[in-house]
Formats: sequence, C-alpha cells, structure tokens
Amino acid sequence: MRVAGITQAQPGDVTFVANARYLPQLAATRASAVIVGRTNGVETRPGCALLYTDDPYSAFARAVALFAPAAAPAHGVDPLASISPDAAIGADASIGPFVTNGAGAAIGARTAVYPSVVVGAGAQVGDDCIIHPHVSIRERVVIGNRVTLHEGVVVGSDGFGFARQKDGTHLKIPQRADVVIEDDVEIGANSTIDRPAVGETRIGAGTKIDNLVHVAHGVTVGRRVLLAAQVGIAGSTTIEDDVMMAGQTGVTGHVRVGRGAVVGAKSAVLQSVDPGAFVTGHPAIPHAAWRRASMLFRRLPSFRKRVEALEQRIAELEEKLAAWQGPPTDR
Amino acid sequence: MRVAGITQAQPGDVTFVANARYLPQLAATRASAVIVGRTNGVETRPGCALLYTDDPYSAFARAVALFAPAAAPAHGVDPLASISPDAAIGADASIGPFVTNGAGAAIGARTAVYPSVVVGAGAQVGDDCIIHPHVSIRERVVIGNRVTLHEGVVVGSDGFGFARQKDGTHLKIPQRADVVIEDDVEIGANSTIDRPAVGETRIGAGTKIDNLVHVAHGVTVGRRVLLAAQVGIAGSTTIEDDVMMAGQTGVTGHVRVGRGAVVGAKSAVLQSVDPGAFVTGHPAIPHAAWRRASMLFRRLPSFRKRVEALEQRIAELEEKLAAWQGPPTDR
Amino acid sequence: MRVAGITQAQPGDVTFVANARYLPQLAATRASAVIVGRTNGVETRPGCALLYTDDPYSAFARAVALFAPAAAPAHGVDPLASISPDAAIGADASIGPFVTNGAGAAIGARTAVYPSVVVGAGAQVGDDCIIHPHVSIRERVVIGNRVTLHEGVVVGSDGFGFARQKDGTHLKIPQRADVVIEDDVEIGANSTIDRPAVGETRIGAGTKIDNLVHVAHGVTVGRRVLLAAQVGIAGSTTIEDDVMMAGQTGVTGHVRVGRGAVVGAKSAVLQSVDPGAFVTGHPAIPHAAWRRASMLFRRLPSFRKRVEALEQRIAELEEKLAAWQGPPTDR
Repeated sequence: MRVAGITQAQPGDVTFVANARYLPQLAATRASAVIVGRTNGVETRPGCALLYTDDPYSAFARAVALFAPAAAPAHGVDPLASISPDAAIGADASIGPFVTNGAGAAIGARTAVYPSVVVGAGAQVGDDCIIHPHVSIRERVVIGNRVTLHEGVVVGSDGFGFARQKDGTHLKIPQRADVVIEDDVEIGANSTIDRPAVGETRIGAGTKIDNLVHVAHGVTVGRRVLLAAQVGIAGSTTIEDDVMMAGQTGVTGHVRVGRGAVVGAKSAVLQSVDPGAFVTGHPAIPHAAWRRASMLFRRLPSFRKRVEALEQRIAELEEKLAAWQGPPTDR
Repeated sequence: MRVAGITQAQPGDVTFVANARYLPQLAATRASAVIVGRTNGVETRPGCALLYTDDPYSAFARAVALFAPAAAPAHGVDPLASISPDAAIGADASIGPFVTNGAGAAIGARTAVYPSVVVGAGAQVGDDCIIHPHVSIRERVVIGNRVTLHEGVVVGSDGFGFARQKDGTHLKIPQRADVVIEDDVEIGANSTIDRPAVGETRIGAGTKIDNLVHVAHGVTVGRRVLLAAQVGIAGSTTIEDDVMMAGQTGVTGHVRVGRGAVVGAKSAVLQSVDPGAFVTGHPAIPHAAWRRASMLFRRLPSFRKRVEALEQRIAELEEKLAAWQGPPTDR
Repeated sequence: MRVAGITQAQPGDVTFVANARYLPQLAATRASAVIVGRTNGVETRPGCALLYTDDPYSAFARAVALFAPAAAPAHGVDPLASISPDAAIGADASIGPFVTNGAGAAIGARTAVYPSVVVGAGAQVGDDCIIHPHVSIRERVVIGNRVTLHEGVVVGSDGFGFARQKDGTHLKIPQRADVVIEDDVEIGANSTIDRPAVGETRIGAGTKIDNLVHVAHGVTVGRRVLLAAQVGIAGSTTIEDDVMMAGQTGVTGHVRVGRGAVVGAKSAVLQSVDPGAFVTGHPAIPHAAWRRASMLFRRLPSFRKRVEALEQRIAELEEKLAAWQGPPTDR
C-alpha cells in the first residue's frame, strides 16, 4: 500500500485528484482508492473507493506522510564530526559525519544535521530543524525552529557590496551584519541568502523558497511568501507577507512588493508593486495588460503592413484631392 | 605536443576548425597540424599538416582525449571516508576522503566518488560513473552507468510542493518518491534535480545538462536532450527526446515539449510545444515570428509617430471633405 | 559602538547616507554620527555629529571594517584535513577540517581554507585568499592573491561541450584546459566557472562576481568587471574591462562586450556590444531605445484600436470619393 500518481497507481494504492485537468484520467486508474474534492462530481466505480474531502491536496499531503514516513537519522554526534568544545548540541539532535560546528554554535533539540554541513562560529540553529548535506551556515546566523535547509544552501554569505574608487577598482564593503531565518521556513537546494553590511537580511516565518534562489543583502522577505526556483531579489528590497513569485523572476533593489502580490514567471520587477497586485513581464506591468500586449507582440509585422497600407492609401487620397484643387464652394 | 585553440597553438600543436567563423584565423595559426572538414576548402600551407575529416568537431574531441588524458583517482576506499557497513562498493571503485555512504547504498564498478560526496541510504550508483566533489545523492536515488555528476549537483532533494491552508500557511507535501538518472547522463555543476511526492523524476539516457539548471519534481526529461546553463523546468512537465534548450530558458509546469523541439535562449515556455518546433521569447512563439517581432519592437516609438501622423492627415482630409459638403452627384 | 543602517542605528552608532533617496530619513535617525557627502547639503542637528567626506560609501566601507573586524580562523592545518604529502602549505595559512588537498596542490601564505573545501591535484591558490566552505577548485586551476571564493563556488568544472553524432548521441569533448582567476577577484556563493577543452577561461584582476553566476568554458572576463547575481556567460565570449552586468542577464557565445559597457537587468545579449554602450532587453538594444519601446509595449492594444479606427475612417473616405467618381476638373 502506497500513495501513487493517478497513472502509476496499482491495485492496493491510493491516489488523488487535486487538479481538475487530471479528472479525465480517473476512469482508467488502477488505484484502489482515490482522494477527490466533494465538488468534483466524480462518479463511483466498482473496486475503487472514493475518499471525499474539502481539500484533496492537503489530504494527499497527509496520506503521503502516513504511508511513506521519512527515515530519521540516528541521534547523537557522529565520531567523524568536528565539534567545537563550546558548541551546544540539543537533546536528541543528530550530527552526521564531517559536520563542522564552530565555536559557540548552538544546535537545537531534535535537529538533524546531515553530513558535511558547516555551521559557523556563534550561529544558532533552532529545534526540530532538518539541515541537509553541504549546507553552509555562516557565523552568527540565527535560524528558528522547524526550518528545513536543502542541500547546498548558503545562509550568511557576504552581500555583493563594493564602493567604486576613482581608479576604477572596487573597495569591498565588509558584510558583517545579521541574517535571521524565522520558524517554519524551507529553503531549496543551492539557494543563497546573503548577509548585509548593516541591518539584517530576514526570511519571515512560514516562507518557502525553491531551488537556486538568490536573496541579496538587506532583503526582508515576509511571512508565508512563496519564491519559486531561480528567483533573484536584489539588495534592500522588501517582499511583504503572502507574496507569491513564479520561477526565474527578478526584483530590483530598494523596492517593495506589497502584501499578497503575485508576480508571474520570468518577470523583472523594476519598481514597487501594490499589495494584492498581479504583475508580469519585463518590466513587470499588470498581468492582464501584459497578457493582452504579449498576444499582440507577435502581430507587430502585420501592424507594420497595416500602417504602411494606410500610409499608401492616405497618400493616394491626398494626391487625388490635391489634383482636384479643392471642392467647388462659394468661398 | 598538445591540442590547442587556433590562436594559442604553438609549433608542435594540433588545432582544429569546426566553426566556419574561425576559418580566417587559419592563415595565421602556428599549429603544426589542423583538423578541418573535407568541405571547408582549406588550402595547404608549408609546415602545417591538414587532417581532413567529415566531422572536425568529433575528431577534435578524440584528439583531446588522446593528448590530455584524465588522471584517474586511486582505487579503493579512502580511510577518511564514512562508509556504512552494509554499503556495497564495486570492484576498482574509488571512494575519496570525507565521502559518506549511507546504509545500503551501492557504488558500481570502476566508479570514482570524489571527496566530500554524500550518498544517501539505499541510493544506487552504476558502473563507470564520475561523481565530483560535494555532490549530494539523496536516499533511494537510482543512477545508471557512465553518468557524470559535476561539483555540487543535488539529486533527489524535495520538490517544491505545498498545500495552502485556510489560514494562509503552507502544508508541506512530503516528497518521498523516486528519481532515476539513466545511463550516459552528464549534469553540470550546482544543478538540482528534485524528487516528487508520487511518481518519479527521470532524466533519460544520453541527456546532457549544463550548470545551475533546475529540474523540478515529477519532470520527465527524455533521451539525448541538451539543457544549457540556468534552464529551469517546472513540475510534472515532460521534455521529449532530442530537445535542445538554450540558456536561461524556463518551462512552466504540466506541459510537454515535443520530440526534437528547440527552445531559444531565455525563453519562457508557457504551453506545450509541438515536436520539431523552434520557439523563442516570453511567451515562447515560433522563432521566426519572434525574430521578426523583436526587430520591430525597438521601432514602436516610430510606429506611434506614424500612427499619430496618419491620424492627423486623415483628420485634415475629413475636415476638407466635410467643409465641401459632399461631391456633386445626381443623388 | 557599531556601524548601523540609518533606521536601525541607536545612540552611540555611526550611520551613513550614500544614496540620496535615504536623505529624508536622516532627520529621524537615532545615530550619534552620520557619514555624509560634502555636497549633500545636510544641516547639522544637536546630538548628531556629521562626518563630511567626498565619498560616503567608501568611508562607510572603512568604518565597517574598523568597527566589525572579521574573525580570522586559527593558523595551521586541522588534524581532520586530508593533505597530500606533496601539497605545499604557505606560512600562516589556515586549513580547516575535512579539507582535501590533492597531490601537488599549493596554498599560499596567510590564505584561509575553510572546512570541506576540495582543492584538486596541481591547483595553485595564492597568498591572502579566503576560500569559504564547500568550494571546489579543480585540478590545475590557478588562483591569484587576495581572492575570495564564497561557499559552494566551483572553479574548473568541465565546460558543456559535446559533438553531435550521426545517431543523435552526444560525444563528450574532454575539457582539460586551464582556468585562471587573477588577483583581487571575488566570486559569490554557488557560482560556477568552467574549464575549456583548449585555451583557457580567465577572470581578470579586481573583477567581482555575485552569487549563482555561470561563466562557461573559454570565456575571458576582463579586469574590474561586475557581474550581478544569476548572470550567465556562454562559451568563448569576451567581457572586456570595466563592464557592468545587472542581475539575471545572459550573454550568448562567441561575442564581445566592449570595455566599460553596461548591460541592464535580465537582458539577453545576442551580439557584440560596443565599448561604453548601455544596452538592455531581449535581445539587448540601446537602453534608451529599450526604455521607450517598453513604455509603448503595454499600449499595443490601444495601438491596435487606433489602427483599426484609421482603417475604418479611410475606408469611409475612399467610399465617399469613389461614389463621387472624381472631382470636376478640366482634364
């Protein structure tokens, strides 16, 4: 018995339909049970139980957790880890081989630190976190409870700050200030969160960040924000609560994306966005306007022809009227 | 004696011309031998041998392999590796220092696992693979034969799947299903391949993926596909065999890019693409149409002026005719 | 006493204003001293010292270095490092735990190599470098003095070079040539610099590269160049001295971006750029032209309506004149 996709499910499996586009495949599934929405209007079928719910996607999430539990690593500190004598390791924490814990670093209770993670001096990781292999947590970074950092995540690397000198060289602005990752945040593989020179970089509680995302120095990301893969946020920008950004979007520095705003895929946000707005494009404009303009973009060659034809026709009219020297009036 | 670029080559070196744009530099090369295509019409020159071939690029590839062989790491398991007692290590495999092999993980014959790689419990790596430093292979991932994973690659990290709750928080959908990397695949540095909640993520045989590429959960990539750097493929999308995607392209979720299709650089593929099609742009449209429209985009200000001029001229004509009160007819 | 942002500063702190947009916040700061430009026209205020300078940003950089000095790691080789017997470690260098140094690799004087770094055989790292955790430096790579490589950086991974065979498979072109990182370069977290088959990849002195940047095989990046986050440069392209590229920009292969050119955010540079030019867009065109055209893009629907209206009006005029059968002339 396992939870399986609608096309892969075998007898004995449970599957689900959350996205209406997959409803037609329901007739052919071999699953023994299907989680469906109450409003989907699915008809019963012999040999397949229907599990009605208001929220099939959430029910599916719970079913997966039930039938395919995660294997927890063994408690305790692996003998091949390098732990500073004054590092604090919480109860029932798990520290894998080749982990480095700097001076004064604190790991919370029940937190799992997988192999080859590096925790800098004075960093704090909360309780019940999952820190996957090859994560780098730089000195003095603060990480809350129930945070998941995927493989290769970097938290607290230097922000990209330089002062141009008269000879054209770039003087480094030391980046020594704080990074705070609040509770219940998840950050995807190989994403990077920079620290600023002053102030802080902060990722709000419950925010979820996908793979290969760049969050620059001094950025504030609010709570429950979703940042899809390969998004980049430039320095000192604020992303308010409940914002959603689709993949490969970029936001310029020193702007604000308002609460609950949505940014479409591969957009370039070059100025602040109002709360609740839905913007797309490069530069990002209201989504509906972008969509209409995009449909017309490919028709630019026909526009050119139509304008040329108009120019030709109007020239002919003008010529005709000029030849005629004006209408017969009593002027 | 070595293989060198056409401008760097010294006497004693062999060089090559595969790209016709470099043909003019042939006259000045100091190389002692040049690999050229039979159809290039290159004239002989004293002191420089011409090596004719139907496929200069492939001949060049073989010459490099001949003159600059890769140094193989020493066989055996480094004493500083952490290998689970029940992990299986194939004959003549090489396991570097600080490698972690989880319980039940299997490494194939003659496979080289470089330092600081982490192989999760139950993962399988085939024969003759090259696993570069800092690669993460998560639990139960299956990797075929002759696969190369470059530095920092992550295979099997959790897909970005959450169910939004009524209070605005995001419930994690556990991502516990399979990832399969078939034979002869190469994946570039710091690219990430996610695992899905159900079903599988699969990279087909012979596919080559460049650096910093994101392949989301449940994606199927076919055989002999080329994905250039910084491409991102969203969840549950299918990329069929022999597709080529240029750099920084993104593909939305739940669509299909047909066999042999080509996607131009930095495109946003927002719907399915027909087999054999060549598309570009944001959103991606047929390449020729994108190219024509792009040339006109920068002329939008002149279009505006032309439309304004037309509006002015037609208003003058209308005024003239209105003043005249209509032509003299027998109506 | 510390250096703080203008809104976070407390009594006893020093803050700064380099960007004129933050001048209005100066009245409300609680800082005890403010670094300002001589030309900012800031008025004095009781309890707050004004530190005038020609270049507030550089003065700020020096103040941060003064008040928040970096903690240097302990000198010497950690007993948990794996150092080849013939590797050369410079005076007062620091080698952290779980570092691998290949045969013949050389680490310069006073260079800090943080935990879990892998240095390949024959690689050379200069003096006074900072190599952060999880960096991979491949075999024979040459790195100058005072270079900083952030977490997860990969230098010398194989370029993406394959020769398509008649059966559709891709033959690997072995990538065995050189990578040189000159003095005073800084490379951001998880960025990747590939090595070519022949010739070299080179990053010029004083160049600064942000996070998640991809530099392909055979690329030459000049001196004092700035590449912002998530930029990608395709193979064999040359970026001349003093170029600046904003985030998420891509440059195609085999082109040249001229000295001092600036490329706007998220651009796609598809052909060579003149020295000193400022280009933006996809494809990149002169920035001013892109800006004007972008403003009009969203107005395409209104253009369509205007063209349709013109077509209607001109048809009415034509009809009117046709009905009249021509003007009364003595022709």
